Order: sequence, then structure tokens, then C-alpha cells
Amino acid sequence: MAVYTNVDPDELAALVARYDIGTVVSCKGIAEGVENSNFLLETTGGRFILTLYEKRVKADDLPFFVDLLDHLARSGCAVPAMIHDREGAAIQRIAERAACIIQFLPGISLTHPTPRQCEAAGAALGEMHRALEHYPGARDNSMGHRHWRDIADATGDLDAVQEGLQAMVEEELAWLDARWPNDLPAHVIHADLFPDNVLMLGDRVTGLIDFYFAATDVRAYDVAITHAAWCFSDDGRHCDPTRAAALMHGYRSVVVLSEAEVAALPLLARGAALRFLLTRAHDWVHTPADALVTRKNPAPFLARLLRYRAPDAAGLFAA
Amino acid sequence: MAVYTNVDPDELAALVARYDIGTVVSCKGIAEGVENSNFLLETTGGRFILTLYEKRVKADDLPFFVDLLDHLARSGCAVPAMIHDREGAAIQRIAERAACIIQFLPGISLTHPTPRQCEAAGAALGEMHRALEHYPGARDNSMGHRHWRDIADATGDLDAVQEGLQAMVEEELAWLDARWPNDLPAHVIHADLFPDNVLMLGDRVTGLIDFYFAATDVRAYDVAITHAAWCFSDDGRHCDPTRAAALMHGYRSVVVLSEAEVAALPLLARGAALRFLLTRAHDWVHTPADALVTRKNPAPFLARLLRYRAPDAAGLFAA
Repeated sequence: MAVYTNVDPDELAALVARYDIGTVVSCKGIAEGVENSNFLLETTGGRFILTLYEKRVKADDLPFFVDLLDHLARSGCAVPAMIHDREGAAIQRIAERAACIIQFLPGISLTHPTPRQCEAAGAALGEMHRALEHYPGARDNSMGHRHWRDIADATGDLDAVQEGLQAMVEEELAWLDARWPNDLPAHVIHADLFPDNVLMLGDRVTGLIDFYFAATDVRAYDVAITHAAWCFSDDGRHCDPTRAAALMHGYRSVVVLSEAEVAALPLLARGAALRFLLTRAHDWVHTPADALVTRKNPAPFLARLLRYRAPDAAGLFAA
Repeated sequence: MAVYTNVDPDELAALVARYDIGTVVSCKGIAEGVENSNFLLETTGGRFILTLYEKRVKADDLPFFVDLLDHLARSGCAVPAMIHDREGAAIQRIAERAACIIQFLPGISLTHPTPRQCEAAGAALGEMHRALEHYPGARDNSMGHRHWRDIADATGDLDAVQEGLQAMVEEELAWLDARWPNDLPAHVIHADLFPDNVLMLGDRVTGLIDFYFAATDVRAYDVAITHAAWCFSDDGRHCDPTRAAALMHGYRSVVVLSEAEVAALPLLARGAALRFLLTRAHDWVHTPADALVTRKNPAPFLARLLRYRAPDAAGLFAA
């Protein structure tokens, strides 16, 4: 659930006056984005999302996100464009926070995607990767492979989350450290393309949103994250082969993966499952049970990790 | 902050299909209404609010609210109309809750109204009262004068909120019980017309919303509540005579108050301040400090009560 900063109507009117988007008609706080305050802003010129950046998004990173979305929008990807004011600025200040006005996109987030929707999501991921292949921007992936041991250490006693988890994570980290590929194609990736970050109307993708984990990493790792996010039962115990094949088919209809990338997918998916297992375990341990933010259960990502460790895991990535 | 129930996209599409409002384009949970889950629903036919009623609104009361809003909308008041489906039904079920689709109104809620905005709010309250003068609907006011002692008793030790409060509340209840008028004009009133329940664009009222405390009571008491809600500093210590006069002028330009009503206003305002003091104190004592719902500080309504007890209080109601 989102944190909400209140926006004073006069301050809002002054902000909107910097843009060529007319005057304010309505502004309602929406329950999207865990790290930011988001508002659905309607003006006489159209509808927009007003985002106020709370502490978890670093102000220093904002120019990267603005440039990334500008680039993707110019490349024809279904992403929300950052709106620039009359002087060309996209990053503003309101209510003592950095803020951006962003294009509103139609569509709703899915909870239980169908195979056709998985295929469309895979294709949209592929189109995003094509647009980013030669993109010069870069950002360290603070949630990437090199940081997992630190996240595990900062979590403390993993056995408090589930008995036996500490030893298993140690073993998995050692196994992945020995094998993690450093020579696969890499560029800026989304790194968090869960169904709630994809807007769809029917089987059509209308928007990829929430790029605040976007960073430079192996592109096939982004495919593995998306696989882990879209193809499992809610408890993570079952990978649906039909959805998985549809996702891979959609992606590979746009991007030609090398043999080395295809071979690495099960390993990268183990990494993806471990990444979300660790960050959820960290938040689980460090968020009071009665805090404002909903704690996400790490268990479904332990289940995914076990599934990706099974001998037949490679078959889950067949297109 | 609102409670959120998730709505499944397929269930939402099925609900919307019952209406002549096209198909779903977007649906976002909004941070409005403390007791319900609210969504800004866009369809190919327009924009709407989808409200799911959580436990604090009784399902038995819903037909009253639907009829009330239907009546006010037909009377030309700026209220959100309930949308009826093809079979005439306004109350539906989704996600195991009662739900309504309601007209979307432009406008934003004010935090610090100007005198001209107070005047417009007073006039809108007056127009609502005119439309309700002969309205046959009725509902017991569970937050009304007859229930305040019960709320005080249920709160427990008021001195835990502030030392000396218990004795003061006892004294005030006795004073009000001896004088509360039972012969003033009464009909259904809003009973909670705070600035966040009024949508405005500039100085124009575009909507009165959140009628879930509406009930039968003395109309001048509704004026007193609105006075307490619109004319004070945030801490409740200062009543702004300019805003107060503007509010009263706006209201009395529409409704002619009797001499008895005017004379009763300071007493009714003491009651209004006590009502919000008691319900906030109750929630303060019974809501854990770390709960999802923000506790509202009772102190600003104690300050209002003191102001309304001052010898010159009648002057605060001059138009």
C-alpha cells in the first residue's frame, strides 16, 4: 500500500501552470506504487499520473528514469511518457518532494494472466529489450547478483523465516557465484516485470510501468524474472507449462536469444527466484507485522527456487 | 487511509457488462473514503467511482443512501448520481461485498478554504437542505445527540486522552441535555460536510460527496457542523470571523433560518464540537497507534468546544 503525501490545491495549480496541459479538473491519490505517492491528475488537457518520490527512490536516480522513459516512448514502446514543462524540465518539486507528471495509459493490471496475455507480455518485454540494446544509459543494479550476499547478511537469521533456509541460501549463493554468466548480452532491463507492472486491455499490452528497479544487467535475466513472475501458481509450487511456453514464444518472436542465453535461463531463473526470496525475507524480518506496508510472503519464491532447481527445469523455457 | 479489496478484472468486466456504460478501460484504487474501497473506473462510456462497501457501512442502509442520492441528483444538487444497471438495480455484489457504480464528478477537495469558497459551500449546503425539506426518507442518526453519552461511556477513561476531559464532557453533556432543542426544523442532513467531502473547482462547488453519515436531524445542527468544519484554524483554537460570516451568508442566501434556529446555533455548535471530540476520542483510545487507519487527533475539537462556549460565540454565526 502506498504512502500518501497530501498535495495542497494551490501548490498543485502552480505546478500544473508550468506545463501546457491546461488547468486542474481533478486529482485523486491512487493505490499504486509502494514506494511513491501517486495521483490520478485530470486537467482540461487530459489525464496524467502525478508521482511524488518518497525516500525509497533516490533523487539522484530520477534523471536516469526520465531519460529511460523518454527513450522508450520515442522508440514506440508502450510506456508512460514523462511530460516536460514549457522549459523542458520533467523533474519538479512539490510538497517538499521531487515529482513528475507522467502520461496516463489505459489498461488494468492482471492478477491471473492467460497464456495469450503471457505471450503479449513476452512480446512487449522483447520490444523493450530491442529498444534498449544500444541505449547508452546505465545504472548499477542494487538488487543484482553481486548484492545478494549482502542482502542475505542484512536479513539476519534466515532460519527465523523458515527452518533450513539459511543453509539452503548459502548453498545456492555458492552454486550461483561459481556459475553466474558475465558474458551474456546486457543493457538496461526492467528487472521487475510482474503482472501488476503491465497494463492490458484484453490480450493487448497498453503499458509497461514502474521502472524504478530498472538497471543494467543481463537481458536473459530479465526474461527469467518475467518467467518467475508470470508463469506460476500463487503459491509458487506449480509452473504452468502453457503460460511459460506462451511467454517464451512471445519474447522470442521479437528477440533472437543466443544458444548461451537459452542454456543459461534455468540458472538465471534460480537467481531471479533467490533475488525475490531474499528481498522479501529481508522485508519480512525488518517490517513490523502491523506496519502500514503490506509484507510480501517470501515462501512462494522459495517454492519457485525449488522448481527451477529440478532436473527438468530447462523444459520450462521452451518456446 | 482506505481499506482496499482487490477486484478481479474478469469479475469487474462482468459487473460493468450489466450496465449501459461500455467496457472497462482502466480501474485504479483511490485513497478516498475511510470506510470503503473506492476505485476510479474508466469505461468506454465515461468515468465512474466504483465503491465496495466494507464493514462500517451496513448493507441494510444502502437502499437509503441510493434513494437519497437519486433524490438529490434529480433535484439538481451537485451530488454524484448512483448509476443503475439495465434492470434498474444500483446495488450490486463483487468480491463478496456490496458495491455501487457512481457518477464521477470533477473537482478537488480543499484543505484551506478561502472565504469565497466557504460562501459557496454554505450555499451548496443550503441548496441540499432545500431539496431535503420535504424528502420522505429517514434514518436514525447513530452519531446524534441522543447517542453521545453512550459514545463517551464506550470510550472509557477520557482523562487518558487529556486530563480533566472526563469532568468537562460530563458537564457539557448535562448542559446540552437540559437545553437541546427538539422542535427545530429537521429532515435528512449530511452531518459530515467537512472540506474533504466537498469537491470544488476554484470557487465553484462541483460536488458534495460521502453521504454515509447522512441521517435525520435538526437542519441547523448540520449548519453548526459545517461551521465547525470550515471556519477554524487546523488546531481548532481560532475561528476565522471572515470565513464564518461568508459561510453563513452563503447558507442564508438560500435558506431562511427562523429566529429560534439562529438563537440555537451556538448551542448546536457546542454539540457538533462535542460529537467530533467524542468520536475522535473513542477512535483514539480504541485504535492501536500503529494501525492501518490514521487516528484523528481529538484535541482540535476540544479547542472548538471551548471557543463555542465563550460568551461572544453568537457573533461567530452572523451572516
